[in-house]
Amino acid sequence: MGFASGTMTEAMDSLSTSDHASVVSITLFVTLLCACIVIGHLLEENRWMNESITALIIGVGTGVVILLLSGGKSSHLMVFSEDLFFIYLLPPIIFNAGFQVKKKQFFRNFMTITLFGALGTLISFIIISLGAIAFFKKMDVGLAIADYLAIGAIFAATDSVCTLQVLNQDETPLLYSLVFGEGVVNDATSVVLFNAVQNFDLSRFSTRGVFELLGNFIYLFISSTVLGVVAGLLSAYVIKKLYFGRHSTDREVAIMMLMAYLSYMLAELFYLSGILTVFFCGIVMSHYTWHNVTENSRVTTKHTFATLSFVAEIFIFLYVGMDALDIEKWRVVSDSPKTSIAVSATLLGLVLAGRAAFVFPLSFLSNLTKKSQNEKISFKQQVTIWWAGLMRGAVSMALAYNQFTKAGHTQERGNALLITSTITVVLFSTVVFGLMTKPLVRFLMPSTDKLTSMISSESLTPKSFIVPLLGDSHDSEAELFIGNGVNSEAREVCRPPSIRSLLTTRTVHYYWRKFDNSFMKQVFGGRGFVPYVPGSPTERSVHNLQEEPKQ
Amino acid sequence: MGFASGTMTEAMDSLSTSDHASVVSITLFVTLLCACIVIGHLLEENRWMNESITALIIGVGTGVVILLLSGGKSSHLMVFSEDLFFIYLLPPIIFNAGFQVKKKQFFRNFMTITLFGALGTLISFIIISLGAIAFFKKMDVGLAIADYLAIGAIFAATDSVCTLQVLNQDETPLLYSLVFGEGVVNDATSVVLFNAVQNFDLSRFSTRGVFELLGNFIYLFISSTVLGVVAGLLSAYVIKKLYFGRHSTDREVAIMMLMAYLSYMLAELFYLSGILTVFFCGIVMSHYTWHNVTENSRVTTKHTFATLSFVAEIFIFLYVGMDALDIEKWRVVSDSPKTSIAVSATLLGLVLAGRAAFVFPLSFLSNLTKKSQNEKISFKQQVTIWWAGLMRGAVSMALAYNQFTKAGHTQERGNALLITSTITVVLFSTVVFGLMTKPLVRFLMPSTDKLTSMISSESLTPKSFIVPLLGDSHDSEAELFIGNGVNSEAREVCRPPSIRSLLTTRTVHYYWRKFDNSFMKQVFGGRGFVPYVPGSPTERSVHNLQEEPKQ
Repeated sequence: MGFASGTMTEAMDSLSTSDHASVVSITLFVTLLCACIVIGHLLEENRWMNESITALIIGVGTGVVILLLSGGKSSHLMVFSEDLFFIYLLPPIIFNAGFQVKKKQFFRNFMTITLFGALGTLISFIIISLGAIAFFKKMDVGLAIADYLAIGAIFAATDSVCTLQVLNQDETPLLYSLVFGEGVVNDATSVVLFNAVQNFDLSRFSTRGVFELLGNFIYLFISSTVLGVVAGLLSAYVIKKLYFGRHSTDREVAIMMLMAYLSYMLAELFYLSGILTVFFCGIVMSHYTWHNVTENSRVTTKHTFATLSFVAEIFIFLYVGMDALDIEKWRVVSDSPKTSIAVSATLLGLVLAGRAAFVFPLSFLSNLTKKSQNEKISFKQQVTIWWAGLMRGAVSMALAYNQFTKAGHTQERGNALLITSTITVVLFSTVVFGLMTKPLVRFLMPSTDKLTSMISSESLTPKSFIVPLLGDSHDSEAELFIGNGVNSEAREVCRPPSIRSLLTTRTVHYYWRKFDNSFMKQVFGGRGFVPYVPGSPTERSVHNLQEEPKQ
Repeated sequence: MGFASGTMTEAMDSLSTSDHASVVSITLFVTLLCACIVIGHLLEENRWMNESITALIIGVGTGVVILLLSGGKSSHLMVFSEDLFFIYLLPPIIFNAGFQVKKKQFFRNFMTITLFGALGTLISFIIISLGAIAFFKKMDVGLAIADYLAIGAIFAATDSVCTLQVLNQDETPLLYSLVFGEGVVNDATSVVLFNAVQNFDLSRFSTRGVFELLGNFIYLFISSTVLGVVAGLLSAYVIKKLYFGRHSTDREVAIMMLMAYLSYMLAELFYLSGILTVFFCGIVMSHYTWHNVTENSRVTTKHTFATLSFVAEIFIFLYVGMDALDIEKWRVVSDSPKTSIAVSATLLGLVLAGRAAFVFPLSFLSNLTKKSQNEKISFKQQVTIWWAGLMRGAVSMALAYNQFTKAGHTQERGNALLITSTITVVLFSTVVFGLMTKPLVRFLMPSTDKLTSMISSESLTPKSFIVPLLGDSHDSEAELFIGNGVNSEAREVCRPPSIRSLLTTRTVHYYWRKFDNSFMKQVFGGRGFVPYVPGSPTERSVHNLQEEPKQ
């Protein structure tokens, strides 16, 4: 404890000595963020661009300007800080993803998502590691075995942030839930793999070690999920019992934000996967807590979480863009530009191959378990999944910095080479692959695109206007696919699912609903729970009224 | 520029080395924040307590626990960081104050507020400085003349944060606007005074120097205000022109938050008073920008700003409470406990005297300019104003740390003595004076209390439910005091203002309204501006409908 606060003190001391300098940096950064938002808005209609790419390009541009202003001398424009990323920027993004995700769609595809996210990442990791060993040994890069394994973990991490921006939850719900769900599990898997690799004693490599790794992963996955669920339920219970809204909307909003963040920090405290925890906390909060608060709190939390996530995303890309120009690292590499290009190209190739190596086989496996043709992943969809997960982003950067800059030996050729290659791969994959994803999705799936947008346009297009106020349409789209007879006119557009798949889905869903209604909602509130407003006579009647169409 | 980023790098580097340690600190802090909110909610009905005092007590309690856990060795639990306070915590609080302040009430009392905030603070500064010189020289504390002047500036800074929690805008609108408005101007004045004192060459003391100081203050006041107004108008213009809401509520919310913060940082960048800037930016944003965005953005921004401010306030008090136990400072002082107590008591006495010395005379002056009995500040109100501004808080702490810990010479007896005395004064005034303010206000003004709550209960009690959705009642209470015939049944409760005062107020207000409607609202939007929603046929008619009752 003493140590903890001691270090925090140092960090703060050095922050407070920065004085006017940090004011300059922050002003510059906030201005750039504003610029990104305005430009992003103006480019909204553009079919190639998205906000990430805009931010990256503005970041690189600003980097160039600062470099010129400082006469090419400033080697540290803004160094990538792992803590800033993992402690402040990532949690709001992942929490918001859990909060806004279409829950039914996500849980329906849970097995496939886990298969892709866990097994797929492992396959990708193995292929990239082996490939790196094979190619880089010839190139005489000069790395240890541990470094090669780390490379595997670093480049197995897809960028769920970028994916969110490229795929549209309303246009391609199945793909979105698969690719994004995979991204979340993948983040957790690659962080776990990376930590395992760092602590791995290669001299004592054994089958037992592999099983330990596996056990460790399963333990992490389950305990992180449980922690997130518990934190979410706790927030629902506290708000339902104390009912803050009676006095202050602000208290409700504050407690929701703080509890969400607390779940992430607790996971980090216990060395679990904060990403998984905060994701499940978001899901539980949107299912229970969100319905226990006042109307105003609902609108506020929904948009605040989305805004924070939005700003954090832009911040990350701006940051990565500016950091890409750190001269010192490039100086070491500039002696051998050919090797550098070769390394980057090899890594890009391995990323492409590693992802292909699991998307197609695992999709085949997943399709075997599905009975209905409608639920299977078509080849075109497989190509999209493969492509949409190719981008590498901030997680890769953070891990690469952790592996190759520790103890400050960036001067070593191998390390500098890998840092610059990571930057190259991140920039290239985000910009080039990113630019091509939107057109690719449109090209491969024009029909789905049209079809789903037809369905969703009825209730979802003016989403930000209606959804938070109605509350009930939170899951409306997912509801369409369950086919429980409520939205019959919408269902006509879809191919009717086979009776068998309808039954199996129904049973699992049916028991969960029963348990949810008879126990969970009694204790934790949730949809249908109407906060008691003093002086409102409609308390009971509204309660019944809202619960009716849910059965 | 190069230097700027270099220092930021160091700060971030040291942050990233803190690793697990900072995770522990943050987790602890977030948990305590949650605890404060829940306990604050439970104590809501208590007439003595408020959230600040709860947070302070919890902070001190936690400090004790950590001290015991670390075996009394941990001297740095959490060192007060000026930057954390001035860059991250203060801006949201002051911005929100400007955003939620009743504008008409504030501008009606503008002259009195400036008189109290600027001249009053100066009087207080002189009395405290002179008193410190007189008393401390006898006690042999061992300080330079510059230190005495600094003490004057440090203890002339009232705590607007704490005042916000003690007085209620709806119950005592006049007092709230006076005390809080004074607090904002006072913050700016004392920071300006403090900087002036630090740069002041005492050997070349002259009348010209005093005039330079005065000129500097006026320049700061005007330029800071103009910057805030410009930033606010710019945000209104940008949002009106681009109309972000068409695509995304999140963009609107993000741009409002970022622009507000940018105004503060720009002021700091140009060495102006960020507090004044962000306060006026808040006022302009609530008058124009807020009306240009979608319904959802309005609800979201209103509550998000309030929540951020709320959390920042609790954070500050928790932080001050925990920092109060930093052993090292107390160790130096513990040799001479009597001197320490004497110094603290003297400072408290000077604070009381310094405030009395300007509240009563300036109230008298202010009353001379008012024609109507109703507008004059009664003696009971004067006592309340005097008392409510006695609390010293985070601004005093920040300035004291700046003056007495720089270059790390806390070991010197005089410096250590003044740091501990500042902590004592802050804790004592916040807890003891703070605890007594609520009962005092109730005791001194039971009638006003009842009266105003009668008026306001009609439209304002379920404030958080209705106000943000109606939008129009934003200023409803202030409107009552203008007496332009709209709320005639409410006015019956008040004593009718004399015709003369009605006329003078009306002319100023009338011309402003005319200008506002004919020019400002055309360019910058504002109340009555209806954002164009695609597919909404009511665009024009709603526009006219809303503007009607405003004239």
